[in-house]
Amino acid sequence: MITVLCGGVGAARYLAGVLQVVDPAQVTAIVNVGDDLELHGLHVSPDLDTVTYTLAGAINPETGWGLVGETWQAMETLGRYGGVTWFNLGDRDLGTHLYRTHRLDAGAALSTVTAEIVRAWGLALRVLPVTDDRVRTRVTVSGEGEIGFQEYFVQRRHAVPVTAVRLDGVEAATPAPGVLEALDAAETVVIAPSNPLVSIEPVLAVPGVRAAVAARRDDVVAISPIVAGSALKGPADRMLRELGHEASVVGVARLYRDLAGVLVVDEADADRAAAVEAEGLRCVVAPTVMSDPARAAALALVSLSPRP
Amino acid sequence: MITVLCGGVGAARYLAGVLQVVDPAQVTAIVNVGDDLELHGLHVSPDLDTVTYTLAGAINPETGWGLVGETWQAMETLGRYGGVTWFNLGDRDLGTHLYRTHRLDAGAALSTVTAEIVRAWGLALRVLPVTDDRVRTRVTVSGEGEIGFQEYFVQRRHAVPVTAVRLDGVEAATPAPGVLEALDAAETVVIAPSNPLVSIEPVLAVPGVRAAVAARRDDVVAISPIVAGSALKGPADRMLRELGHEASVVGVARLYRDLAGVLVVDEADADRAAAVEAEGLRCVVAPTVMSDPARAAALALVSLSPRP
Repeated sequence: MITVLCGGVGAARYLAGVLQVVDPAQVTAIVNVGDDLELHGLHVSPDLDTVTYTLAGAINPETGWGLVGETWQAMETLGRYGGVTWFNLGDRDLGTHLYRTHRLDAGAALSTVTAEIVRAWGLALRVLPVTDDRVRTRVTVSGEGEIGFQEYFVQRRHAVPVTAVRLDGVEAATPAPGVLEALDAAETVVIAPSNPLVSIEPVLAVPGVRAAVAARRDDVVAISPIVAGSALKGPADRMLRELGHEASVVGVARLYRDLAGVLVVDEADADRAAAVEAEGLRCVVAPTVMSDPARAAALALVSLSPRP
Repeated sequence: MITVLCGGVGAARYLAGVLQVVDPAQVTAIVNVGDDLELHGLHVSPDLDTVTYTLAGAINPETGWGLVGETWQAMETLGRYGGVTWFNLGDRDLGTHLYRTHRLDAGAALSTVTAEIVRAWGLALRVLPVTDDRVRTRVTVSGEGEIGFQEYFVQRRHAVPVTAVRLDGVEAATPAPGVLEALDAAETVVIAPSNPLVSIEPVLAVPGVRAAVAARRDDVVAISPIVAGSALKGPADRMLRELGHEASVVGVARLYRDLAGVLVVDEADADRAAAVEAEGLRCVVAPTVMSDPARAAALALVSLSPRP
């Protein structure tokens, strides 16, 4: 049994590697819902969908999110009315949001609906939202105050400095059914190469999850999303600096040292291995840039190989 | 000033005729909202949209509803999940429902949102939902009990006998801003050739509307939606019979005799003119089948010509 703590794109690519080397029925993804949003009356779960669509081979290669073969007719009509169009919703993708919203309105839990969606894409792994409760990542940006995560990430193209992150609702949230059990039963728990502050932290912050991960520290492997001081995608590097962390594998090691026994860092950071180990984690150096499925599978093998 | 009480398709075609012969800025459409529905979290207003899309020249000619150039990608995704697909929502059309839902969620009144949508389509007439409040037409069908109007109309293709119609919420509804004024100020009030029981009745039943129409009886012209005993579209003929009315221009005359001074009937019903007049309305015989824009304009002229 393998359990992976996940944000969106990086985690999805890593999971695609895992599914090449592990029986999918033995894999559980625990996914961030802090960047979910309600838009036009619909419940949108970007990280859950990115994981599902990527693993189904249906992710839109042009955008990196949404579905392949997408069209944008609904957005075009919305634009005619001067509606809110900064968060693009493709026509194919909309079907997922319609289904999710309908089921949630009918009283189904997000974890139940997610399982239905994942099954409909023919996937055998288990994908769990970290919680069925409402948690929303809110970001304070210079000069503007606090805004929703997607307002920061999409509307402002994460180009504005962040001074604080708050996880609205997290104190009252409880882990979704199966989350703590999946952490408890896993042979290895992996912290995927996702943004530590806005993808992984909203997972850990759900009461009970951080302690459950820490309790498995010897079997927890984190993969650094920072390579040679930069995020491969998104604002993780700037955000780390803006919030007082070091944008490096050592900064990542400091964030995860109470949770993970191993940090996998890219070969580009081989010279920082000793500094990582000085933080109390074993450092594994390996190619971490998952530019194709073979490299993702190789990273999965490295991260899941028995620890000494 | 011309004010028209409207359902969907028949009313939209009639209005298209009116706009050819009257300055659009002088025309107000008061539209049924009893067949509105909430679906997948979205607020759908079928009659408002049919009127708007038809007048904008954007109605889908293949379906008779929704938008021309439509695609069905969202529905295809929804079908993958086994979602609710009996009420088809095209991708282009979805943009309208997203916009309407977003604005209603933000606290805008349906009449405000409708005005915004109508303006965005470049239309100069005024389109008013009869009420900003929630009114839902519910239909009791044999053997099933009471169901929503669209469950009857679309899901069961109006192929099941109806034993009762109830307008849920209508007692507490108030006319939308401008509705009573438009009835009061109109030179002519027209009852469009729509289903009397499930399109026109939900308009009249909003407290204050029936009395406002009756007060203008001498200037109210109704157009029969029944031609030679049949509805041109939809179940009006069967529904009239099922609910104890005569499915004929005389049956229509009986329903409207307290409200309208004139009933326009098709030439096919010329032999019933005396029977109509025996009900106390003047009967005007004219071609009422609006198979093309010229015929719609001709019907508009007949219905709006000065009364003796």
